[in-house]
Amino acid sequence: MQQCPRVRIYGAIEAGGTKFVCGVGTGPEDLRTVQIPTTTPTETIARAVGFLRRESVAALGVGSFGPVELDRSSPDYGHITTTPKSGWQDVDLAGELGRALGVPFAFTTDVNAAALGETKWGAGRDLASCLYLTIGTGIGGGAIFNGVLLQGAMHPEVGHLRIPHDLAIDPFPGLCPFHGDCLEGLASGPAIAARWGVPAGDLAPDHPAWKLEARYLALAIANIVFTIAPARVIVGGGVMHQTHLFPAIRREFVQIVNGYLRVPRIVEHIDQYIVPPELGDHAGVLGALALAIAEYR
Amino acid sequence: MQQCPRVRIYGAIEAGGTKFVCGVGTGPEDLRTVQIPTTTPTETIARAVGFLRRESVAALGVGSFGPVELDRSSPDYGHITTTPKSGWQDVDLAGELGRALGVPFAFTTDVNAAALGETKWGAGRDLASCLYLTIGTGIGGGAIFNGVLLQGAMHPEVGHLRIPHDLAIDPFPGLCPFHGDCLEGLASGPAIAARWGVPAGDLAPDHPAWKLEARYLALAIANIVFTIAPARVIVGGGVMHQTHLFPAIRREFVQIVNGYLRVPRIVEHIDQYIVPPELGDHAGVLGALALAIAEYR
Repeated sequence: MQQCPRVRIYGAIEAGGTKFVCGVGTGPEDLRTVQIPTTTPTETIARAVGFLRRESVAALGVGSFGPVELDRSSPDYGHITTTPKSGWQDVDLAGELGRALGVPFAFTTDVNAAALGETKWGAGRDLASCLYLTIGTGIGGGAIFNGVLLQGAMHPEVGHLRIPHDLAIDPFPGLCPFHGDCLEGLASGPAIAARWGVPAGDLAPDHPAWKLEARYLALAIANIVFTIAPARVIVGGGVMHQTHLFPAIRREFVQIVNGYLRVPRIVEHIDQYIVPPELGDHAGVLGALALAIAEYR
Repeated sequence: MQQCPRVRIYGAIEAGGTKFVCGVGTGPEDLRTVQIPTTTPTETIARAVGFLRRESVAALGVGSFGPVELDRSSPDYGHITTTPKSGWQDVDLAGELGRALGVPFAFTTDVNAAALGETKWGAGRDLASCLYLTIGTGIGGGAIFNGVLLQGAMHPEVGHLRIPHDLAIDPFPGLCPFHGDCLEGLASGPAIAARWGVPAGDLAPDHPAWKLEARYLALAIANIVFTIAPARVIVGGGVMHQTHLFPAIRREFVQIVNGYLRVPRIVEHIDQYIVPPELGDHAGVLGALALAIAEYR
C-alpha cells in the first residue's frame, strides 16, 4: 500500500523576551507565523505547542533569548539558564517543546538563528561562510561555515570584543557592566544614547556620533575578518536602521585594513562584503526553520 | 591473488624560508624527517621529491611559508604568491611536488600546518576545536573545528588584530608597516626588541616588558575567544620560550574577561585552557602529514 506523497513541514520558534514568533513551513515562500506574547513559561510554551501541533511538524528548531545552554552533551542542553527575565531561569525550553510535540528538536541563540536564516535564505545565500552581526540594545553575532554554526566552547560573544578606544577623541567610558569600553559598551544603542544624551534615533545623519559609531563597528568587523574571514558580513539590528552607517563602516574598514588584505572578495567588492540583512523581522524564525530541517535530516 | 598487506605511508613537507623539513610516516611514532636547505625552487623541490619518491608515499601534505593561495577553486591553488623571498614568487610549490610524485596533495600555510599537528597529536588532541598561535618574528594563528582548518575567504590573519593600546603606558607606536600598533606591531619579537632597545631574549623575567607583552597577547586571545571560543588555545613561537609568560597571560586574560564568561572549560581550568605546544619543532611537519592522510581519505 502506497502512502500519499505529502510535503513535510517544519516548526520554528524565535523565542524573545517580549514575544515568541512561531512559524511553520519549508522556507520563506510558504512560511506562516503567529506571535505569542511572552508571559509565564508554562502558558507561553503551551500556546506555542498548541499552534505547532495543529500543523504536524516533522521537527522543531528554536532560537532563543539567553543565556542558553547549547552543548548537546550537557544535561541542560536546550535550557534558558541565568536570564534576568523573571520566571524564565533554568527553563528547559527546547526540551519541553520537543517532548510535547514528540519530534526531534534543535536549539540555538536568537542571534545564531538569525545568522542561519540570513545565510540560508537572505543576504548570505549561496555562500560557504557568513557572519551576521546585530547592533541594537546589545551587540551579538553568529557565524556560519559550510552550513553549520561556528560553535566552540560557547557561541560567539563578539559584543565583548576589545577595540582601540581613544579617550582623547571619545572620553565616554563605555557602559558594559563587565568591561566598560568593550564593543557593546561603546557602540550599542544605549551606549550611543548615554554618550550624546539623546536617543540614537534622534541624532541627525551628519552628527559626529555616526562617524565614531562606524569606526567602532569597522574595528570590530576587521578583527572578526582577521580571525575567521567570512565570505560576507551582514549587519542588522536597530542601530543599523541608520542606513547611512553602511558606507561609513565600509570606508572605515578599508582604512583600518589599509591595503594589507589582497582578497578580491573583501577589498574589491566592499559594497557586497559588508551588507544589510534581507529577511527583516523573519531572519530569526527562518533560521530556526533551517535548524529544524537540518535536524530532521 | 591477494596482495601483501602493507602499511600505507604519507609524505609531509614543512616549507620554510631557510629549510624544508620533509617527513614520511603515519604519525608521531614512526615519523622520519630530513632537512633540506631552501635554495632555488628547482633544486629544493627536486631534493624533496627525491626523498619522498624513495618512500612511495600515498599522498602529500605541504605547509608553506607565504603568502600562499589556499583556494582550491583558484588556478593558483598551491602556489607561493607575493613572497619577498627572491626566486620564490609565483612558484607552484604543491602542484610541482604533487605532480612529480604522482599522488594527491593538500596545501596550507606553515602556521595552519602547525595548528593541525598540535590539534591532532599535540596539546589539542581529542578536542573538537583548537586555536594555535605563534608569537615570534611575526604573529600568526590557525584554528581547527571538527578536524578541519577554519578557512573563510582567507586563512586567519590574527597577527593584525587591533587591540587597545594605551599610549600613556606604552608610547611605542608599533612597527607593522600596514597598521602600526596592531597585535604584531606591538607584540612580535621585533616589536619587543624595538621598544626596549635590546633583543627580547635579553630581558629578565621581571622586566616590565613582559607584563605588557602578556597584556597584549591576552587581549588578542580574549578577542579570538569571544569570536570563535576554541576548546583550547595553544601558544607557541620563539617569544613563548619565555615560559613565565604563560601564567602572566592567563592572569591578564581572566582580568580582561572579568567574570563575563561562565564556561567552565575556560574560566575554571585556565591552566589547561591557555597552554604551550607539545610537538616542538615537529608540529608543522606532523600537521602536513595529517593533511596528507585526510587528503588520501
